[in-house]
Order: sequence, then C-alpha cells, then structure tokens
Amino acid sequence: YDYDRPLMKTQVPGPRSKELTKQMGQIQNNTAINFFCNYEESRGNFLVDVDGNRMLDVYTQIASIPIGYNHPALLKVVSDPNNASAFVNRPALGILPPESFVDKLTEGLLTVAPKGLNRVQNMACGSCSNENAYKAMFIWYRNKERGTSIPSDADLSSCMINQLSILSFSGAFHGRTMGCLATTHSKPIHKLDVPSFDWPIAPFPRLQYPLDEHVRENAQEEARCLEETEDLIVKWRHKGMPVAGVVIEPIQAEGGDNHASAAFFISLRKIASKHGCAFHVDEVQTGGGATGRFWAHEHWGAEDPADIVSFSKKLLTGGFFYRDEMETDKPYRIFNTWMGDPSKNLLLAEVLNVIRQENLLAEVTRTGKALLGGLYELQAKYPNLLSRARGQGTFCAIDVCKASVRDKLILQARDNGVILGGCGDLSIRFRPALIFKEHHVHMFLNVFSDLLAAH
Amino acid sequence: YDYDRPLMKTQVPGPRSKELTKQMGQIQNNTAINFFCNYEESRGNFLVDVDGNRMLDVYTQIASIPIGYNHPALLKVVSDPNNASAFVNRPALGILPPESFVDKLTEGLLTVAPKGLNRVQNMACGSCSNENAYKAMFIWYRNKERGTSIPSDADLSSCMINQLSILSFSGAFHGRTMGCLATTHSKPIHKLDVPSFDWPIAPFPRLQYPLDEHVRENAQEEARCLEETEDLIVKWRHKGMPVAGVVIEPIQAEGGDNHASAAFFISLRKIASKHGCAFHVDEVQTGGGATGRFWAHEHWGAEDPADIVSFSKKLLTGGFFYRDEMETDKPYRIFNTWMGDPSKNLLLAEVLNVIRQENLLAEVTRTGKALLGGLYELQAKYPNLLSRARGQGTFCAIDVCKASVRDKLILQARDNGVILGGCGDLSIRFRPALIFKEHHVHMFLNVFSDLLAAH
Ligand code: FES
Repeated sequence: YDYDRPLMKTQVPGPRSKELTKQMGQIQNNTAINFFCNYEESRGNFLVDVDGNRMLDVYTQIASIPIGYNHPALLKVVSDPNNASAFVNRPALGILPPESFVDKLTEGLLTVAPKGLNRVQNMACGSCSNENAYKAMFIWYRNKERGTSIPSDADLSSCMINQLSILSFSGAFHGRTMGCLATTHSKPIHKLDVPSFDWPIAPFPRLQYPLDEHVRENAQEEARCLEETEDLIVKWRHKGMPVAGVVIEPIQAEGGDNHASAAFFISLRKIASKHGCAFHVDEVQTGGGATGRFWAHEHWGAEDPADIVSFSKKLLTGGFFYRDEMETDKPYRIFNTWMGDPSKNLLLAEVLNVIRQENLLAEVTRTGKALLGGLYELQAKYPNLLSRARGQGTFCAIDVCKASVRDKLILQARDNGVILGGCGDLSIRFRPALIFKEHHVHMFLNVFSDLLAAH
Repeated sequence: YDYDRPLMKTQVPGPRSKELTKQMGQIQNNTAINFFCNYEESRGNFLVDVDGNRMLDVYTQIASIPIGYNHPALLKVVSDPNNASAFVNRPALGILPPESFVDKLTEGLLTVAPKGLNRVQNMACGSCSNENAYKAMFIWYRNKERGTSIPSDADLSSCMINQLSILSFSGAFHGRTMGCLATTHSKPIHKLDVPSFDWPIAPFPRLQYPLDEHVRENAQEEARCLEETEDLIVKWRHKGMPVAGVVIEPIQAEGGDNHASAAFFISLRKIASKHGCAFHVDEVQTGGGATGRFWAHEHWGAEDPADIVSFSKKLLTGGFFYRDEMETDKPYRIFNTWMGDPSKNLLLAEVLNVIRQENLLAEVTRTGKALLGGLYELQAKYPNLLSRARGQGTFCAIDVCKASVRDKLILQARDNGVILGGCGDLSIRFRPALIFKEHHVHMFLNVFSDLLAAH
C-alpha cells in the first residue's frame, strides 16, 4: 500500500501551506509549523502535503508513527463497528474501565513488558507518563523511609515542602510540564521563565567517535560521569533533598542522540540501587522498536535493567511499567480523569500484531545496518561536513559541521522529497517508521549524497 | 435512543465486576475502581455495567461525557470513512497540522471563544492545558517586565531559578501534574510526598446558605478573601517571587462545589489586573454547558472576564483560550509532541452542533431548575440530613451531615440505579450530561427520597 517514491510539485512549504499557516497565525502561535498535510493521501513511509508534494518521511511526527500512514490494519480497527463505542465513550479509566480493558492490557502492553516489570499504569502522553512515574518514585521512596504506608498528621500537613528530588542528566529531555521540565536540559529556551526545582543534574558522557578508536577516553569519560552522579546523590541527601529517583534516556534524543555504553547504564543502575534511589528509564522516544529491540534498554543485556520504564509516542498511548514494590498504597494518588484512552490501546494492540507478523524488529535491524553503513560512507567521503555517525537499528544520527549547514541540509532534503529532523546543536536524527526498508534507505542516501556533492 | 429507566440485576459491583477488578489488581492499582462497564450497551443518560445493571448516570465519568453515551451523531463521525485517517494518523499538530485543522478550530472551538479571547491553543487533557496556561502566563509576565521578547544571556543561563509564582485558592483543584499540583489544595493525600513550589494560597470564600438570609455575612466573607488575596500578591512581590497569574475555578468542583458571587470574581479580576497579574479561569470541569451557559464565567456578566480560560473534559480535547497579548513570542515554548488530537476536534465539532440544534443550554437551565427545586424540598424535609443545596444549571450539589452518611447514600443510590459522585468533605455533586431532562431529575429524586426516608 506504500508509494514507491517521492514526488515533488512545489518547494515546501508550498502556496497552500503558506496560506493555511497564515490563517493559523490568526488563531495561535504558528511559528513552529513546517507545512500542512494531507493525511488522507499519505501512505506508509510517505507523507503528502496540501500542495500535492509526496515526501519520504524519515522523521514520522517526531518519532511517533509506528507502522506508517494509513496502515490497512489500523483502518480496519477504526471501521469495525464493534470498536465504535471505544472511540465515542471515553471513560474515566481509573474508576470505570471497560470490560475489555484487562484483556487489552494483557494482549497489548503486557506482552512487551520490560524484564522484571510486571505492572503497567496507562497514561495519555509522554509528559503525564513521566510526571506520574516521578510521583510513583516519590511515594515509594517516602513509604520506604516511613516503613509504613500510613502517613502521619505531620506528613499530611507538611506536604507543601520540597523534600525530595529527581536526578537527571545534562542534555536530557523528559517533557515540558513543570515536573518533567525540571529534568529537561536540552535547550534553555524550553525552560526560560518557568519556575523549576533545585534538583541535581549529572553530566551525561560525551563519547568520541569512532568508538573503537577512543575506547580508553570514552571509558574514562563514562567513569567520570558515574563518579559525579554518585557525588551528587550524596550531596543532595546531605542537603535534605534526597534523590528519590534517577531518570535517564537510553539514548538522549532531543539532546542530540547522545549514546553511552551498556556498561555505563548498568553501573548507573547499581549506583542508584546502592543509594536507595529508584532507576527510571525514559523510553518515550526510544521505545517501540526503532532500535531493533522493542526497548532500547534491552541492548544493555541487563538482568535487572530498571525499576520504572515510561513510554508514549510509537505506543500511541502513554504510561509506565513498574516493579511490584513500586505499587502505590492508596487510591487516587496516581490518578486523573481519563488515565489514558482505551481507543489508543485498541490501535496499539494492532500495531503490536503487525510488528510480530511482519517480523519488524528484525527488519529494523537490517534496515538500520544499511542506513548506518551509508552514513559511514558519506562521512568518510565528506569528513569536513559530516562526523559522528551513530545509531542502533534505524535510530541513527550524524553530526554536521555547523548548525546553519545542518539546518540548510534539512530544508534542501525536504525540497527534494525527504523529511529529516534535527536534534541537539549539530545533529540530524533519523526516525523512520518500523516499515522503513533498505530501498527507502537508498532513496534517502541518493538525495542526501547529491546535496552533499553540491555543497 | 436513550433507555427509559434504570434496571438493576445485582448489587454494584456485581460478581463480574469483582472478578475483573481482582484481575486488574494483578496489573495496576485497582483501589479506585468502582465497577467495570459495558460501554457498547450504554446509551444516553444510562451507563450499563458488566453484570447487566443499567444505571442513570448523574456523574458521567467525572463530568466528562457531554451528550450521553453512544450518541448517534458521534457514532456517525467515527463510521464516516472520510474521518478514518484522523483516527489512525495522529500528527505532531504543532509542526505538521492536517489541512482541515484551521477549519475545525474555526467551526469548533472558536465558535465558543470566551469574550475578549480570540486565540486558542489546543492541548490534550486538563493537566497539560493548565500547565501550559501557567507557562504562557510566566512567559507573558517576564516579557512584559523585560520590555522585549529577546531574553538576555543572563536570563538564559539563570532559567533554573524560581522567580515567579501562581496564586491559587484553598480548596482549589487544577490537576495533578507537578505544576498543576502546586495550585491544587482539595485533599492532602493528592499532594503528599510530591515536591511543590512556595506559591501563595488565598482563602476562597465560604458562603453561608441560604444565600438570601446571609447577604451581609457573605459579602463580608468575600471582602475578607479579596483583601487577603491582594495582601498575598504584594507579599510575594516583596519576596522576589511575583505572582504572574491568579488561577481560579468559577465553581470549585473537586473541593466541594464552592460558589462565590459574580461581584467577587469581578473584583478579583480587577485586583489581578491592578497588580499586573494575568487572570486565569480554569473551566476544565465547569465549561461545556452544564451551568446553563457554555462557560460558567458567563454568569458573572463581566465585560472582560479573563486573560486565559482553560478547558477539557466535556470538550473532549484540552486547551486554553487567551488574549492576543498573551501570545508567546517564539516557537517551541508552548509545545509538545502531539499538542492535542485532531480526532477529538472532529468529535467536539459534532458535540457543539448537537448542543445548538437541540438547544441544550436552555434545556440544561430548565432541568437544573427542577433539580435544584427538588433538592430544596428535600433539605426542607430532612434538615438534619441535608443542607446547602446549591447550583447553576445542572451543576448542583448538596451537603450531607456526615461524610460517612454521604458515602453510604452514594453507594445505596448506586444499588438502586443512580450513579452519583462526592466532592469536598460532605457534598454530593450532580454532573449529568447535557441531555439530562426533567424526567431524569424525577427518577433521581424518587430514588433519593426513598433512601432518605429509610435512613
Ligand atoms: S499531560 Fe498527558 S495528555 Fe495531558
């Protein structure tokens, strides 16, 4: 059902997109709009815009379209009259769940539960998933400290006080609501003017590439970051704001596709446990299969990777998996009106079926090899322009010498039928859907190498 | 298409609900679950559970079902093949909106824009609506102070510091993510263990009923609250954490259906303006027509009611309306991956059509009179049990002498086919859909007066 190639009719944004963007400016801030889309005509790996341009989509709505546009299996879910009720009667899931919800969780999310995490709390987006994961860690930490789940009167009356913290990493992105934003450090403009918490921020390793030529430096860099992290945990305990949880992305995505070794994450997890802190792996952008495993943290090969794993984007719904011990003790502590949306769980169950039936994780691994191989070749050919090609599966990135050149390349690629995204200061990130194949890699590489040659 | 009366087969929760609740306990916290529902069989004002019980729903998923279950107009939206794409291709609305989105906003949300608020930002739930409304107020406040929208380097590097605050009221509920939670004060257990901000909390008036017998006391009480609010604004400015915005519900819903006079809100808005604070009216629970006006704040009759009005629940999507001057200056300051969900805007447009075609605001006013009249009669008959009947439209409440009696009455009503909700310490709240008619009021009153007589 996919298209076979890009087809361009105008520059992007074209005249119709420009007109609609202008209209949107009358209603709300329109300064982030790239162009307007014709989602009805979009298919598979190709996004069609309102000016009739058809582009190979290697960005997929900020990494959130799992199996391409208008996938027939998903259209079938929507057109099935048995499902109509799920789309029109959005329940307050925490108090009045639909009959099928336990089954949908069992057949859906629980089939991809990370190792050791038997429980899952459904939420609606990446931000509420992380906000509530943080709350679960705060509650767990204090109950552990109290030795009982019954709060004293003093606890209840002093609940306005800042007593606990979450440790995050420089360059991290965990969302933009105020709890999440306190742990987000990718760009200052995201945080400007918004009150925040005095929580510790540890350095994230800055690896040198190619990795095999910098084994010793990178190991030292990671050791330094681990040491500083442990120091911060101790320091904040002494400050009277103990670290209830450590939150980290397996690959820092918005911050510039920053990777670290499996050994780093495993050591970090041990440090967290040693100091009684929960370990929260934020897989909102990395989860769902793009790294070739369903969860990026599976690449660590750890027996006991995490206490909490949060997700959203490609999983269409939001939520977090958690260890039994992290269950909250009382009703309404982790709660909101909707607690997710069962119609998204219907669609997710189908996405997971397609991933299995079409063996998409293996496909992603194959496609990713072709993509990374192509990036290696290009950076060898254009060492002054490109560097630090890196990735897992199709979750790849490459750095460009200057931000202005990076931004220009992204726009030129778009005018030539390929949608790319930037991240960090200098990186181009690749975030195709799981149905992106080797021939799509070659389509991209052809366009990109022409642009580089002309540069 | 509605059922004509309740039909009970078991106590609630029945055996099937109990079994499913037990199964849910293996997956996540199940302590807030009331019972499991058969949404396919539910219709109009009646919620059907998995044991075949059919109940008159006067709570509607925490006030979030606008026009009843399985409304034919909404089922038609879902079954229309032209809409399928909106349900399966969730876009990153802030960067790649669908062609129809400007029209959907114009035909939908903008037709109900509050007075003076020409702009609307779509969001996904009550929490992200309020979190982002707060951020918009912080950004507006600082830009105003700077006199320019260009932040200095010092601004950018100091953005971790707590510089601004939001003033909220005792008893308020604005959500449970960490920014929202800092302004929520309905129950200590909601806030326990979660870090918060040192933001000012003003007293909300505690009115005495019946209102016409306590005119002087109530006016004094409101004057006292206004005075304290102004004092707090001044005090926090001196503390170096000026109040960027004042947030208030037109009726404090979770906190116990606390009302105040139109004069109170109008004076409060003036105090906010006088001190350069934005005035944010949170209509997440009150908005959408249940008070007999589309927005509860319309009852104030104010020329210039607010700078920001946030909404969700009955509006199916989330978001906030705002004044032109509050537009953010730059891209990505008010942003997240999804920025709402266009499929919810499709459904909302249809809800608004039904509200107009069936003249539902006038109907709500009529039904509300019958409901409040019935509550007045009951409290006159049972003065030791009931007091403080109050409401606007069908957005009504009544107090019960003791929390334990209130809780028992709610459970007994449910076993007799009527779903009610509690709020505050002693109140029963009424939150029917907009299609709740006078004969539904009588169904409820019959069940309720039997219970009271038997007490
Ligand atoms: S905060 Fe996640 S949907 Fe609103």
